[in-house]
Amino acid sequence: MRTAAAITIGDEILIGQVTNTNAAFIGQKLSEIGVEVTRMVVVGDEYEEIMTAFKEYYEKFDAVLITGGLGPTHDDITKRVMADFFNVPLVMDNSVLENVRDRLSKRGIPMRKVNEDQALVPEGCEVLMNHWGTAPGMLFDDGKKFFVVMPGVPHEMQNIMSEHVLPRMKVRAIGQVIKHRVLKTTGIAESSLYELLGDIDSLLGGRAKLAFLPSQIGVRLRITVKAATTEEADSIIADLEGKIRNKAERYIYAGGEVDIEETLGRMLTEKKLAISVAESCTGGFISHRITNVSGSSGYFDRGVVSYSNRAKMEILHVPGELLEKFGAVSEEVARAMAEGVRNISSSDIGISVTGIAGPTGGTPEKPVGLVYIGLADAAGTIVERRLLPDERLRFKDRVSQAALELVRKRLLGIS
Amino acid sequence: MRTAAAITIGDEILIGQVTNTNAAFIGQKLSEIGVEVTRMVVVGDEYEEIMTAFKEYYEKFDAVLITGGLGPTHDDITKRVMADFFNVPLVMDNSVLENVRDRLSKRGIPMRKVNEDQALVPEGCEVLMNHWGTAPGMLFDDGKKFFVVMPGVPHEMQNIMSEHVLPRMKVRAIGQVIKHRVLKTTGIAESSLYELLGDIDSLLGGRAKLAFLPSQIGVRLRITVKAATTEEADSIIADLEGKIRNKAERYIYAGGEVDIEETLGRMLTEKKLAISVAESCTGGFISHRITNVSGSSGYFDRGVVSYSNRAKMEILHVPGELLEKFGAVSEEVARAMAEGVRNISSSDIGISVTGIAGPTGGTPEKPVGLVYIGLADAAGTIVERRLLPDERLRFKDRVSQAALELVRKRLLGIS
Repeated sequence: MRTAAAITIGDEILIGQVTNTNAAFIGQKLSEIGVEVTRMVVVGDEYEEIMTAFKEYYEKFDAVLITGGLGPTHDDITKRVMADFFNVPLVMDNSVLENVRDRLSKRGIPMRKVNEDQALVPEGCEVLMNHWGTAPGMLFDDGKKFFVVMPGVPHEMQNIMSEHVLPRMKVRAIGQVIKHRVLKTTGIAESSLYELLGDIDSLLGGRAKLAFLPSQIGVRLRITVKAATTEEADSIIADLEGKIRNKAERYIYAGGEVDIEETLGRMLTEKKLAISVAESCTGGFISHRITNVSGSSGYFDRGVVSYSNRAKMEILHVPGELLEKFGAVSEEVARAMAEGVRNISSSDIGISVTGIAGPTGGTPEKPVGLVYIGLADAAGTIVERRLLPDERLRFKDRVSQAALELVRKRLLGIS
Repeated sequence: MRTAAAITIGDEILIGQVTNTNAAFIGQKLSEIGVEVTRMVVVGDEYEEIMTAFKEYYEKFDAVLITGGLGPTHDDITKRVMADFFNVPLVMDNSVLENVRDRLSKRGIPMRKVNEDQALVPEGCEVLMNHWGTAPGMLFDDGKKFFVVMPGVPHEMQNIMSEHVLPRMKVRAIGQVIKHRVLKTTGIAESSLYELLGDIDSLLGGRAKLAFLPSQIGVRLRITVKAATTEEADSIIADLEGKIRNKAERYIYAGGEVDIEETLGRMLTEKKLAISVAESCTGGFISHRITNVSGSSGYFDRGVVSYSNRAKMEILHVPGELLEKFGAVSEEVARAMAEGVRNISSSDIGISVTGIAGPTGGTPEKPVGLVYIGLADAAGTIVERRLLPDERLRFKDRVSQAALELVRKRLLGIS
């Protein structure tokens, strides 16, 4: 068993009311056991549409995993199509009927005809008991083709996958193991990172794929390896990761899906350093990100969201002359804010941001997107000037990322 | 134009690393203008796979909307397949080149060969300018078949859809209109809301569907109507909205996908009131939400994230005796924080939260999830005690929602 297709059934997905997270789950789990999902498709609650998809994908793929259309209501017809496709009648399954009866009585809901019908299954299928809901999984597996229908409720589908489907598929998977490794970078544009890594093809040597996944807070590099065994995949990944790190180490703040505030939290905890934040244009978002990390009370003392000039003067003791002479968005004020919050909190590190979020308020000298990021510590104060024009929330993302990255680099001694 | 297919290109979706939100967006927007998406499909970054999908869906559907695979790196091949599919060469488009140059220079990023290549487009296509990124949309439209390729970055795709694609498709759509209306409630449980609305079937009278969509910050009610014309759909929705508001008005803070901080921003602006925030367990998230609203500098003066007791005493002047006697998480301290931030900022309204986020730090008297929310204004100070135990980020969601809702009710004179 090497290839698979995921078919999702439901009008609610076609009209965009629900995002197709079931297909994503299936794609992820199968790739981990070495079965490649090479097609995902969504069809509506229509007999002909479903039948056509069953025929096409059963023909083309070793395994077909179907979700949705098994509820008790009139528009759920997957089971009927399934029975017709295998040319068998629907028959009552007593173990399923028992399960349905049990679940309803526990909730004090009377058993109705539509509930009983949930225990009808295509004759000859293997029932995959659903301990998390009423509609069972139903499997036809002749040793060549693997065809399974599961309910569309995510946690029910996920449990049936984990308990029944994946263990069976795993022993038959002859495809390669597919493994991924993500390296998160920030502070470098996609195209510059691409150049920095040099000739990608020779780096990869045909052993892996490398994807560049940019967002407003940085570029994620994803290494994907197909190999015969997990061990082989891991060893290729380790080798490539080493080569990439050799070239781009300073931009990489995490291996795996870890946020920079977590990386920073570990570093601050290790070094026993406390941090405080003075922010203006990010409006509390930097403090929010820092405190998203469990245990942050161990190193985060306070945050000041000094939106008005008065707040900058009163809480952070920014001199009024600086504000008048250079304006709130200036290197001088960023410096005073960072030093101010460090002083009042007695923290080891004070960081500050002051900038112009826009859309209004820009001038030729100080355009929308301009931001000054300050960092004060025992060694002195540095201020970075950045231009990060963007939509309001993305601006906050980018500025906070740049501020946290500045701290990371400072702790590493590279800024 | 009646039917459409959405093709999403990208290995990251097949392996479940990214959920296919682009297809959901396309499905939703097309259903609103009366074009039915009857097929969604995901294919990998493979030439043959993409070509096969192009052929199959171009043949079967009136419109084909494609996203993904337009980045500057080696694994993005959609454009090459598109050119081959229409049997034309890739040619340099000067307006796109200008746009790429512009965007890069604004960010101080040097122009490279891979960036220039982004301005290559299939000859004869119509370029849909991307003002939000570098890769343009590309359209082939011969009056019968509508074939458009867009970048996979969600906000770029969404903007190109709204500015270019939807207006063109709309005038040619001949299907049934599907419209939704969302009413956002907070401060009432799903089951209580259900009871409050009474007999739903007689309320709807077969003219619409009503969905209850609960989340940690409240229950969204979604009315869905299918009708022959936009006008008919709108009139049914207006009637139903009126009936629902009659019963549940006080819990409804927005019609449409509007956040409570926007509702609050409008109210504060209208009443010319300023607000300041003192927060502990939410770590800056309340200030962040308030400042997400454009124009919030008009009514938001400052926020204090007083994570440590020292910060509460030094900035907010919370008496040390209160902290000692009642603890940081107490009605008394919440009151002192709200009054403190109101006093130091001279704002009309001061709000405060102090609570136990968990997972550790709870006691029998003060369990995890306990939070006190304070509000000080000219009429006095009130403190609400709530129990909102949840995972760290969801806890921040719920507490900030409760705090903002407290202000909304205070401004309406119902708390």
